[in-house]
Amino acid sequence: MASRRALVVFSGGQDSTTCLYLAKEEHEFVSALTFAYAQRHAREIESAKKIASLANVEHEIVDLGPLFKGLSSLVDPSAPLPGASETTNHGAVQQLPSTFVPGRNMLFLSLAASRAYARDCSTLYIGVSQEDFAGYPDCREGFIKSMQQSIGAALDREITIQAPLMHLSKKQTVELAQRLPGCLDALAYSTTCYNGSHPPCNTCNACLLRARGFEQAGVIDPLLRSARQLC
Amino acid sequence: MASRRALVVFSGGQDSTTCLYLAKEEHEFVSALTFAYAQRHAREIESAKKIASLANVEHEIVDLGPLFKGLSSLVDPSAPLPGASETTNHGAVQQLPSTFVPGRNMLFLSLAASRAYARDCSTLYIGVSQEDFAGYPDCREGFIKSMQQSIGAALDREITIQAPLMHLSKKQTVELAQRLPGCLDALAYSTTCYNGSHPPCNTCNACLLRARGFEQAGVIDPLLRSARQLC
Repeated sequence: MASRRALVVFSGGQDSTTCLYLAKEEHEFVSALTFAYAQRHAREIESAKKIASLANVEHEIVDLGPLFKGLSSLVDPSAPLPGASETTNHGAVQQLPSTFVPGRNMLFLSLAASRAYARDCSTLYIGVSQEDFAGYPDCREGFIKSMQQSIGAALDREITIQAPLMHLSKKQTVELAQRLPGCLDALAYSTTCYNGSHPPCNTCNACLLRARGFEQAGVIDPLLRSARQLC
Repeated sequence: MASRRALVVFSGGQDSTTCLYLAKEEHEFVSALTFAYAQRHAREIESAKKIASLANVEHEIVDLGPLFKGLSSLVDPSAPLPGASETTNHGAVQQLPSTFVPGRNMLFLSLAASRAYARDCSTLYIGVSQEDFAGYPDCREGFIKSMQQSIGAALDREITIQAPLMHLSKKQTVELAQRLPGCLDALAYSTTCYNGSHPPCNTCNACLLRARGFEQAGVIDPLLRSARQLC
């Protein structure tokens, strides 16, 4: 049986929004946790606020400051972002893409676990996927399973990490969102673009993956239906 | 063979100072990483600066702000600290002491690993001990071993965690410090007291453990020899 209380690592993007609405289906109490880390796509913080409000869940934003400065193009506005061809996940990639922020999901899960401990939540949700993503090691199942063990050992308490998108393609993630009441409407306010552009840039890898997923699912991305105001 | 480059999680206390000097013995390049997290014993930050300078190592201080606010008496100046009798490690403790900061060492190791990745260090040092400490689960060997696996999975790179004090009593830690050139002198500037007092309060559990260790080793704590100026 699912536990009663869950905490969602919530960026305000497509995947974590889908996780948030799934967590709401599966738990009585849901809390969302968003991290500000001077990311270039800081618009997602505003997305997170708006969607948490729509979803009517408790929401905390933790400001980590420029904690990863110098470690990734994702936190350096002057660095070029890789295009889709540089970040495929089909065995051809020799190096990690420049958007890899080393240790980011490990840090997020560590902090989420300490919040979960304090709020008596026994389940964490995180929207990582090893199917569709850019070869980031901290999006893989092996890492998530290991981290669940580390969290249990660190806190002397069992906390389950749910990564429901782990084996879903972006098409399947869109189909899941369709089945969750309110989720597609919320996705109209989400931010996926690595550049934080609105309308999305449609050239960065994150934009291209999202667009392909909606296209393959035969669904019009609600983000594109109309210009949405976040504030 | 030991790796050439190491990074030390360095609080400015007795244990991490001993680790720092041990790392210097075992590696060509040593970097120290200190976390400010609005701890009530913030004096240890000044200790860390002074000792890193004495040891002539690269030193970074990461300010995490009030990240653990409300989660522990260690970050709440108005909360009472437990005395020694409440925090023994001999099977009598049913609850974790109020000074437990849930997830702290997990967070520190996550961040240290991302720094180690960026600086090409393949070894991390952390001064935890399951012998002498207050029953904190994130000071135990099981946690450290699990975390080493999680770090390797998150970064796709093997990083070894050295916890050389894990099975040492405080007496043995003092004896180790005696054997490391410069370490005892540096300990004159360290901060152990949970209250951040100088001279030490000698009533909190951390002070009592330190005093007992020096006494059992037959060494006068250099911290007590004279009042040292940190700045």
